Amino acid sequence: MKFCTQCASPVALRVPDGDTMARHVCEACGEIHYQNPKIVAGCIPEWEGKILLCRRAIEPRNGLWTIPAGFMENGETVEQAAARETWEEACAHVEINGLYAVFNIPHVNQVYMIFRAALKDETFAPGIESLETGLFEEAEIPWSQMAFPVVVQSLERYFSDRQRDHFPTFLGTLEPIKR
Amino acid sequence: MKFCTQCASPVALRVPDGDTMARHVCEACGEIHYQNPKIVAGCIPEWEGKILLCRRAIEPRNGLWTIPAGFMENGETVEQAAARETWEEACAHVEINGLYAVFNIPHVNQVYMIFRAALKDETFAPGIESLETGLFEEAEIPWSQMAFPVVVQSLERYFSDRQRDHFPTFLGTLEPIKR
Repeated sequence: MKFCTQCASPVALRVPDGDTMARHVCEACGEIHYQNPKIVAGCIPEWEGKILLCRRAIEPRNGLWTIPAGFMENGETVEQAAARETWEEACAHVEINGLYAVFNIPHVNQVYMIFRAALKDETFAPGIESLETGLFEEAEIPWSQMAFPVVVQSLERYFSDRQRDHFPTFLGTLEPIKR
Repeated sequence: MKFCTQCASPVALRVPDGDTMARHVCEACGEIHYQNPKIVAGCIPEWEGKILLCRRAIEPRNGLWTIPAGFMENGETVEQAAARETWEEACAHVEINGLYAVFNIPHVNQVYMIFRAALKDETFAPGIESLETGLFEEAEIPWSQMAFPVVVQSLERYFSDRQRDHFPTFLGTLEPIKR
């Protein structure tokens, strides 16, 4: 960020009085511009034991597979965000069930919140951000073509928990991938 | 927001092409300024059965009691945020345990994430944002002087769950208080 949202003057990156972290501060009007982590809300939509996945039509990871998920918007609940993303990306209506996993991803300032979900019917199709959508048995999941480690971890855990029919809310943290 | 953070031109509030919600869009450089909900991370710090509370020295709800909680920062995990807030507001070191409650508060664009926590020792004191701090037995909680409904609901549930020694992660939504 270069300019103040309130008065258009240049901002400086410095620690404000009484604060402990550097912020974008307007030296003209004094406005402090805070930046905070974003919530990515998603779900694992199930239909007759199969999982609904979307193949991404957008960057990052264009062409790879994911569960429906995206940035939560102002004015909605996390559950509503997860259902909305499923509608937008896979044209599918879901019933959102329990909160299944929370993943900190601090190096990109994101917190994933992933729910268990049930498709309301077998209707689905690629939304504008998806190339294709499909229902996958566990053995059919395209593990080598998944978009994000957080999705792989969530699905692996989900299939494991499903064998025991026990889905405790998981809290984890993902580190950057070393290349 | 009035001006673009990238080029200082005035912004317009309109729905960008391909989007469904109004955003602050810069008509000069095309930058879209998204605004998203913030996470408030907090904990219920326990010491020998008592709960550590803080009396607020800042608005809103100056002078009323709360659990340690505040806005999560970029670069940290939710657990780290909850521990940091406890240090800042109550000068206390905590061990953060399980995720206890998630509360949507959509009318203020916040998601509270509250953890169970244990004080590491009996040391605590008011931080710069607190007037006083103290350990309270359940019967001593100043219910009529609590700062926020989300804190009241979390503590009521906590004491109830504690009787059964069973603390499932709770997911709820708070509506605006009708006055």
